[in-house]
Formats: sequence, structure tokens, C-alpha cells
Amino acid sequence: MMKIKGLQRYGQLKNPYRKAIIINPIMTGGLVPEKVQQRLFEEGWTKIGYSVCFDCLEGRSSLISKPPVRQFLNDVAEFFGGDRAEHTFGCRAAQFAVMKTMKNFVENEGSKDYAKVVITDPLCHYTTGIAAEATGFRLVEPPHTGYPEYKVNAEGFQQKIEEIKKDTGKLPGLVAVTHVEPYYGNLNPVEEVGKIAEEYNVPYMVNAAYTAGVMPVDMRTFHADFLTVSAHKSMASLGPLGFLVTNYGWAKRTFQTSKMTTGWSGRAFGKKIPNIFGCSVGGIPLISAMSSFPHVVERVQRWEEELEKIRWFIRQMEKLDDIMLLGERPHKHHLLHFETPIFWEISKRHKRRGFFLAEEMIKRGIVGLHRGLSKHIKLSLYGLEWEEVKKVRDAFHEIAEDFSKKLNLGYAVTDVTDEHDEEGGE
Amino acid sequence: MMKIKGLQRYGQLKNPYRKAIIINPIMTGGLVPEKVQQRLFEEGWTKIGYSVCFDCLEGRSSLISKPPVRQFLNDVAEFFGGDRAEHTFGCRAAQFAVMKTMKNFVENEGSKDYAKVVITDPLCHYTTGIAAEATGFRLVEPPHTGYPEYKVNAEGFQQKIEEIKKDTGKLPGLVAVTHVEPYYGNLNPVEEVGKIAEEYNVPYMVNAAYTAGVMPVDMRTFHADFLTVSAHKSMASLGPLGFLVTNYGWAKRTFQTSKMTTGWSGRAFGKKIPNIFGCSVGGIPLISAMSSFPHVVERVQRWEEELEKIRWFIRQMEKLDDIMLLGERPHKHHLLHFETPIFWEISKRHKRRGFFLAEEMIKRGIVGLHRGLSKHIKLSLYGLEWEEVKKVRDAFHEIAEDFSKKLNLGYAVTDVTDEHDEEGGE
Repeated sequence: MMKIKGLQRYGQLKNPYRKAIIINPIMTGGLVPEKVQQRLFEEGWTKIGYSVCFDCLEGRSSLISKPPVRQFLNDVAEFFGGDRAEHTFGCRAAQFAVMKTMKNFVENEGSKDYAKVVITDPLCHYTTGIAAEATGFRLVEPPHTGYPEYKVNAEGFQQKIEEIKKDTGKLPGLVAVTHVEPYYGNLNPVEEVGKIAEEYNVPYMVNAAYTAGVMPVDMRTFHADFLTVSAHKSMASLGPLGFLVTNYGWAKRTFQTSKMTTGWSGRAFGKKIPNIFGCSVGGIPLISAMSSFPHVVERVQRWEEELEKIRWFIRQMEKLDDIMLLGERPHKHHLLHFETPIFWEISKRHKRRGFFLAEEMIKRGIVGLHRGLSKHIKLSLYGLEWEEVKKVRDAFHEIAEDFSKKLNLGYAVTDVTDEHDEEGGE
Repeated sequence: MMKIKGLQRYGQLKNPYRKAIIINPIMTGGLVPEKVQQRLFEEGWTKIGYSVCFDCLEGRSSLISKPPVRQFLNDVAEFFGGDRAEHTFGCRAAQFAVMKTMKNFVENEGSKDYAKVVITDPLCHYTTGIAAEATGFRLVEPPHTGYPEYKVNAEGFQQKIEEIKKDTGKLPGLVAVTHVEPYYGNLNPVEEVGKIAEEYNVPYMVNAAYTAGVMPVDMRTFHADFLTVSAHKSMASLGPLGFLVTNYGWAKRTFQTSKMTTGWSGRAFGKKIPNIFGCSVGGIPLISAMSSFPHVVERVQRWEEELEKIRWFIRQMEKLDDIMLLGERPHKHHLLHFETPIFWEISKRHKRRGFFLAEEMIKRGIVGLHRGLSKHIKLSLYGLEWEEVKKVRDAFHEIAEDFSKKLNLGYAVTDVTDEHDEEGGE
């Protein structure tokens, strides 16, 4: 029998951030409520990968009624303004399924009218690019406005559709817009683009990985044919899990069941959906998403409170010399991207270089800044209590002031006291 | 704000099988040790979907060193006799990645010599079929021997290769064999087929979903280029999680990083691997697989003990009138398929029809028979203590005897006492 060195390390994995305040924008919308965590453990859902499969009768997790997966998917579809939903291996797998659908469409029934081109926003998530690459679509992007706002206008999409028409004589096979883009947290004009796509009769996907489950999202108002969702990013869920929501018009093609038969044995798998690998299993991520769903439905109604917190925090950060939010103002999402020259200056003189900032934050019980970056930082305060938000602000201010003094950088912090401090934060 | 009826149901999901003995063959190899479950909860790994991503520096989970994911994948590759491994969204996604690799190969550099055909065993898992369908491969199967053993011979693969050569002038693009097939638990002749594939220079995949992690598996002895593994099926792990293991020869093509650039913005995603959707996230399934790995490495060494248990149980079941194991003898895997005329007879007279058997078992604290089936049953005792194995046997015997008497069916059970009963099971 082979020996593997240091095997015991795997049995003792520690989570050093168990009690930290988490501010990583990919994480804050996915945090599982404590009560749900407790239930996952106590009900024994952490015992087994196939946790939803005990009473599976039809061979596909989305058809299971005990626990009520089928009902849940109907409710998810309704919650996001769609007609049908399937759970997927994350939002990336949902986007892949959309592109697969469009690939089949463009190569077959739509071949006269559509080209294998996707028009997408220039700050789309990388998974949109990977899904296009994996299915052989070419990406075309309208421009953004550049520094410091990086905004994308709906007109750019219309121009690109026209360009593609001119170049190929066909329409693009898909318009895919990221509802909120992952670089600056800008809310894209998904409704306006939707109207344009509808006018041209181009299928339209909105990637709501950063929004569906934290703020109100209704794909009907977007005029969208497809909505892709990340449960572990924005639905208080364990991962990997996502949802693909679509309308009746596209559901049949997207969730087309298997048509193949094997060779000699003549088997068929008529309940399975090839675009989502037959059956997407679900497992503990699905149980966690179901358990968190009442919480998610309730919290999106409190989005305005989150925006208030976000905007307060931006003002507080900008009281630090030279620190500036990038992206649109007023800001409409919890993903914040600051340029932070002061931390960049400190990093040049610090023995830990760019790593100093994330490490100083961790010392203060706050985790989630990308290690190594100090010139720009991305963070999110979604779901934090006011006390925690202030703790994050204080940490940044303290680090700036301490090192500024120590290194004689001459940076100044404007007085930050404001109504939230005075009123105890509420 | 929309209202969703009955939302509270999701917050109170109960696991009615929390304390049951589990005998579903897709589940028994995936059960997470209690100590690991405890740690998942206590270390806060159940708090967050992106649990492995806190210290991600390069943007791909498989490159993370804290926790030691990169090292773990090296160890997994070594453990299964391969050179490189990536984690995937389950074994189905691993098979898909193999077929994608072969699709690119067959359509490009191998286009002169290889056809878009996969030769697979006639009892392959449905996911092999779905992966072929999703990538446009045609499936070709050699026959099995039929009732009651359903065995597959290596020669059949050679014949099929020759047939394809004759028909197309090319070799098949892939030979894909299920190490142990999911219908009867037969161990396929993976080494012999591997030698044949090697002779013909046809790339060779072994799907070890039911074996890798429960019994010794070494892809080098199989002459395999690809090994696909299910963590939630056979590695004591939560799901969805799988592994794709390959050799240096194929690793570059299989794990080829993204080559695309987006349009206007000119972005590139050079660390991401399109065949596995860029980055396979990992999350709590990956943490659980890592935590269970020492246990898995240890337990495969005790496979002979499991076989002893399995064979004892088969003898005991066959003491029930007419009950017979299907599949090969001696049996070499924990997946057991019995034909059970006695239960079929009972079901015809029972008001719950075919459901009676699974329900009677559940009453006795044993879950995992497919609800509705009584003519044939599939089950597994993998990992159970002797006392539990006997409890399962007793349950079947009791149900048979009780109903046989009640319904005057005249079935008889041979005396079942044997050395294991007398010795207290050890």
C-alpha cells in the first residue's frame, strides 16, 4: 500500500477566520445564517453527499418532492419573475447551459438568422467569457466610460447589434449582461438593454450572480429570457450551487431532456437534462439554499437599509486623504472598489509590501481583502450590523493614521464623527 | 413585494433518516465520518460557500495553498496512480471534461486518425451517455453476457474497435469503461481493456465513481489516461464533488487554461480552465473530502473485510426462497442487486404495492431501497458494522416470513445461523 506523507494534515484543517468579520464581496451575500448552519449539522444533512436523494423516484433531483425540491424550484422561478428554474453547479454552470442552448439554436433552427456571437458588457464576470469559450461563441463588447466611473450604456449594445448585422448579415445569438458587474459594483442598464434585445428579437440573458438574493430582481422587468443566479454568492447558501431561470418560451430548449440511446443495450435516459449534466445532484448546498430561502425572501425587502449603510461607509472612507470610490455615484450595490493611494504609499515602505493591508485587517478580526493588493481594494459590508460596519471603518482609519505617522507620510484623516456615531449607529 | 405561499416550510426541513442505517449503493461510500461532520460545523466551514477561498491568490481553487488544496490534489493524483488531478463538480463533470478534451482532439490534431465515437461498456452509468451526448460523441457498446451475470469481456472492446476502423477508416476517439458498473456491481476487466486501448493507441478513460475511495484503484495498472472519481459517491465526502485524474501526456490538453480574450476590454483569464468552468469553486464538499482523506486512504486497505461482509450477506439473503444475486460470482463489489420474487409476490397482495418493501425497511430503521421496487432490489452494506449488517439481514428475513405467513404464500427461509452469529459477528 502506498504511503502519502503528511496525510494527517487533512484531518485537522483549521478555519482561522471562523470568528472574523467577512468583507469579501464574493462571500457576504452567501453567508449562511447561524440557525441554518445549526440545522444542517443537527439534522444530519452534513452526513451525506446525496442528502436530497433518499426519496428520489424519478432520477432527477429537481423532480424530488420530499424534501420539496420541485416546489422550491417553482418558488425560486416565481421569486425572480421567471417561469421555470433548475438548480445548477453554480452560476457558471447556469451560464454554460444558456450558451449550450444558444449554440444548439444558432447551429440549427436559428442558423439563418443568428451568428455565433455573444454581446456582453465589458466588465462581465470571467465565467461569461469561459462559457462562451467552452461553447465556441465569440465575445463582443460595447465600451465603458473608463476611469473613474466605468459605466456602460445601453446604446452601446444597440450599436454592436447593428455592427454584427452589417458584418455577418445576422443577429448575435445572445445578449448577455451582468446585472451588477464584479469590478466596480456598477448596476448595468439591464432593462434598457432588454428592450433593445427584444426589439431586435435577440435572446437575452442577465447574469444576476451578485444581485439575485440580496436585492429585488425580476427578470420580467428586465425583458430577460434567462436569469443566471449564484446561490453561494447571493442566496445565503453553501456552494457550489446556482440556478438557471427561464421563461416558457425557452424552457423546452434549455431543459430539453436526453434524446440519446446507447448503442447495443438500447438504454435511454429520458428524465435527464444534458445541459445540466443529467441531474445536478444538489446535496448539502441545495438543502442550505432551501433552508435559507425564507431569510433571503425577507432580506431583499431591506435592500434600502443596505444601500444606506453602503453610502455612509463610502463617505467615511473618502474622509481618508486621497481615497476614492471607483464606479458609479450614487452607488447602487454592495460591491465597493476604492483606489487607496495612502495604502499604496505605506506598502512601498512596509516589509510585507502589498500584503500588509490584508494582514493588518486580519489582526483586527476582519478578513476578505485580497492579499497582496493595497493600491486598490474591493470589499462589501452586505449584511453586517452597524457596529461591525463601524469596526471596519475604524480599522481602515487606524491603519492609515498609524502608518502615516510612523512613516511620516503626512496623510490626514478628516474628522469622521457623524450622525451614525452620535446616534449609536442606528 | 411578492408573497410566496408556505415559505416557512423551507426553514424547517427535517431529515427523517438522520439515524437510519443507510443501504443505498450511491450513498454508502460517501458517508462522512462523524468526526468530520463535527469539524465542518465547529470550524465554521458550514458558514460559507466559498470556504476555501479566503487565501486564494491566483483565482483558481486548485492553486490554493491555505488550506492545502494544491497539495491535496497532488496527493489525490498519487493515491490513484495518476500525475495530475483537478477537482470537479462531481464525476459527471469530470467525464464531461474528458469528452470535451477528446472532442477538441478528434476535431483538431487527431482528425485524421480518430472518429467521434466512444466505445463504452453496455452498463455504463448514464452520466457517460450524457457526457457523450453533450459533446456530440456517438456511443458504441460491446454486449454483455445477459442474465444472470451480465458480464462484459475485454474482447468485445477489441471487436468494436475493429468494426469502427472498418466502418470509418478511423479509430474511436475514446474507450470509456466503468470500473464497477452501477446495475449489478460487476467489476469490469479494466486492465485487459486498457491493454487493448494501448495497443490500438486509443485514449482510455476509466470511470471509477463506485470504486475510487472504497477499494484500491491504480490507474497505471489499468493503462488508463483518465480516471474519473466521485467524492460524494466513494470518498466519504459531501457533494457535489468529483476528481479528474490524468497523466502528464494528457494533462496539458485536459487542463488547458483559457486562451480567449474578450472583445473591446481585451481581458484574458489565463489561470482559468475552461473544461472545468474556469475554477471549480470547491466549497464545503472540497473541505469535507480533504478532511475525510486520511480515513479514505486507510479504509481502502480494509477492502477485503468488506468483501467478506458482502459475501456473507449474499449467502444469507439467498437462504430466502428464490432470492438470487444477479451479477458476477464471486461478487467483487459492495453494490448488490438481487432478484426477489418473494417480495414481488407480497407486493401484488399488499395495499402499498411495490412501496411496501422500502416502507417496511424504513419502519425497521433501514433506508435506501428504491421506493416502489420489490421485484429487484439494489443495496450496499459498505462500511456498516457487523451488527448493522445482521440487522439488515434480519429485517429482510422478518419481512419475508411475516408476510409469507400472513398471506399464505408458503415461502420458506432456511436456517440462517452461521459462524458470524455464533461468534458475535466478528
